[in-house]
Amino acid sequence: MNVSIIAIGDELLIGQVIDTNSGDIARHMAPAGWKVNDVQVVADSPQAIKSAIARAFETSDVVLTTGGLGPTKDDITKQVMCEIFGGEMKESPEVLANVMEVMEKRGLKLNDLTAAQAIVPTSCKVIQNRVGTAPIMWFEKGSKVLVAMPGVPFETREMFTSEVFPMLCRRFKTDVNISHRTMMVCDISESLLATKLDEWENALPPYLHLAYLPKPGLIRLRLDGQHRDKDMLEMEMDRQYAKLRELTGEHFLADGDLTPAEILLNALAEHGLSLATAESCTGGNIAHMITSVPGSSVAMKGGVVAYSNEVKHALLDVDNDTLARFGAVSIPVVEQMSKGACNACRADIGIATSGIAGPGGGSAEKPVGTVCIAVSTPKFTISHTYHFPGDRQRVIDRASTTGLIMAVKAVRELQAANDAPA
Amino acid sequence: MNVSIIAIGDELLIGQVIDTNSGDIARHMAPAGWKVNDVQVVADSPQAIKSAIARAFETSDVVLTTGGLGPTKDDITKQVMCEIFGGEMKESPEVLANVMEVMEKRGLKLNDLTAAQAIVPTSCKVIQNRVGTAPIMWFEKGSKVLVAMPGVPFETREMFTSEVFPMLCRRFKTDVNISHRTMMVCDISESLLATKLDEWENALPPYLHLAYLPKPGLIRLRLDGQHRDKDMLEMEMDRQYAKLRELTGEHFLADGDLTPAEILLNALAEHGLSLATAESCTGGNIAHMITSVPGSSVAMKGGVVAYSNEVKHALLDVDNDTLARFGAVSIPVVEQMSKGACNACRADIGIATSGIAGPGGGSAEKPVGTVCIAVSTPKFTISHTYHFPGDRQRVIDRASTTGLIMAVKAVRELQAANDAPA
Repeated sequence: MNVSIIAIGDELLIGQVIDTNSGDIARHMAPAGWKVNDVQVVADSPQAIKSAIARAFETSDVVLTTGGLGPTKDDITKQVMCEIFGGEMKESPEVLANVMEVMEKRGLKLNDLTAAQAIVPTSCKVIQNRVGTAPIMWFEKGSKVLVAMPGVPFETREMFTSEVFPMLCRRFKTDVNISHRTMMVCDISESLLATKLDEWENALPPYLHLAYLPKPGLIRLRLDGQHRDKDMLEMEMDRQYAKLRELTGEHFLADGDLTPAEILLNALAEHGLSLATAESCTGGNIAHMITSVPGSSVAMKGGVVAYSNEVKHALLDVDNDTLARFGAVSIPVVEQMSKGACNACRADIGIATSGIAGPGGGSAEKPVGTVCIAVSTPKFTISHTYHFPGDRQRVIDRASTTGLIMAVKAVRELQAANDAPA
Repeated sequence: MNVSIIAIGDELLIGQVIDTNSGDIARHMAPAGWKVNDVQVVADSPQAIKSAIARAFETSDVVLTTGGLGPTKDDITKQVMCEIFGGEMKESPEVLANVMEVMEKRGLKLNDLTAAQAIVPTSCKVIQNRVGTAPIMWFEKGSKVLVAMPGVPFETREMFTSEVFPMLCRRFKTDVNISHRTMMVCDISESLLATKLDEWENALPPYLHLAYLPKPGLIRLRLDGQHRDKDMLEMEMDRQYAKLRELTGEHFLADGDLTPAEILLNALAEHGLSLATAESCTGGNIAHMITSVPGSSVAMKGGVVAYSNEVKHALLDVDNDTLARFGAVSIPVVEQMSKGACNACRADIGIATSGIAGPGGGSAEKPVGTVCIAVSTPKFTISHTYHFPGDRQRVIDRASTTGLIMAVKAVRELQAANDAPA
């Protein structure tokens, strides 16, 4: 089934807000065989919304809009839908009751503007928004469907997954099977990897396709397949994926579409190990990436954001002489930091970073982007100095990802050492 | 000048990658009076790219594409451009030299695929990509311009700002002046705020416009103006902005388009205060938000990610009896955590969080979303228990933003107390 998404809002076109809704929707639909043809981001203007809808219906059976449903003046989507699909604007008692309930839960009072959320075109079927005040509207035109959803990412994610998508699946059916296999690969450039995989990729059957999805410090490889014969498709997918895994060799990191934090938490769980962090230049981002994963508290004991040298000494027991002699951005210091984190938090594995994220603070010897990373285990400590390109955010991201991947490798090495005959 | 942006890539349409380039481009162009009409996100398909370009040229003088320029098979943008703008595909010695230089800087070897980056349509003018291997291509058709840029956000941001946009500004000129004023507002719903501002908003001159840009826990209000008469425009903008600030009253948080971390760092700098964090449920996110700001090391001493109770006790000196009696998610515990952070890191202001981010761990008494936050100063400690809606990420975001805003208020209150006559 073909889908077009339209994200509505002036704020998206001046770059003050990033459209994450389209990605959330697409990510949820793709595995079920729905194809997002395109996304259009348009202004809060009746003419722009109307042409986008007309265009979307040219190629797609289902059009999903997000945004433009807020209670304020600049949100005009509802009126535009009424002009396109007919009917009149009328207050819905059910929607009003829902709006009042949502406002009450939030401890807020109903006012005229919020109450106006209950006025909807009579041509739509309303889907009650359990987590916000803007009602979701389902319109039909011939065999085609348009669903208008709010712009607040949390509301759209919640309501699309629980209500809108199940309704769409009931309304439209398909007999083509879709299959995906994803793996994470590291320590290789996209082009070198492509050279390695070229021959195999050219020999793939026409219903299989490989996509390269590079992220800072990592490449996701996704094998996609589409076929009516489900068993045959799955068998071929398994066969080709096994081949791909062989070809990626030592660059293979993990099966599945996982974040580096998830890969690490899985490795820790497998071996019953706990974790602590000691972050200088990454400033808490590694801990944040780990603790964003539900259930991370099983392995994650805690960490120290050691931004100042005093904190490195006081909380991580980094030797003041070492700090003075080698500087905060040095291998001896990060190694002490990572051991210090393990001691302070009583954890098995420690990850430590110290570097120059920029834009200031660089020198000829240690330019912006220089980051020392160490991972300590009960048996050994590994460490390395990196030079990451890019701006502050990119250096922080790359250093965080690299630290997590180093820890994954250290856990595997530790396990191999433990498994080895004495 | 009107602009259309086209983001190219299958990965964008299955939601594996979020298009942040359009936002970066728009954010950079808007203040200079360039208007992004729309953004189209399309697949790596010649037909989709061609129709998107045709559509974009219908309404815009400048079309910017991002993505589809990688060295791998699925990137076909270059060939499509050659079909549209004519000429033939030919290796450019200058581009090849640049590709070799970039690869060398990264410590990588040139291979056939990367070398193929140097093959470009003869119909384009190449802009050398200093930070990546995909060349940037400038095409002209009559009075219109299309610039094809890479999809890697860092490369696009860097090259658009330093080369592409200055070239566009030289090529196109305009005599309409654009002006923006942004303020941050908190502790009020979007609809209640709109009710408060309704009368004033209706009386705005037609060349001024107010936009509401809600973020979790905050609302950005942006006043936009466009006029040929620059002095008159600026005067009227100042006048209306002052009025707006008056109307927002106690909900006004700060002037400018700033993150909560930036607002806090400004307040700390103004009063020469230092900061430490003690995070349980936010898991390092507050420290990350602070340290993402360049120069944050002036105020930020460090912090503790106190995920386990042992770490709360060992590093933050939280009393074990208090933990046992009130539980980790309690006002007495966060208050001790925030004081503990100040002591451990020798900082003036401490921010502490402890809560249940979910999806697990909730109870009838303390459901998922319950978060205790405390801010301590040398003179007093403030604390509060919140109930945030939404999933894990949203609870973490809201708690982090709320902690930062509480700290801003505490710093101002501290200053007011210090300023008061003894």
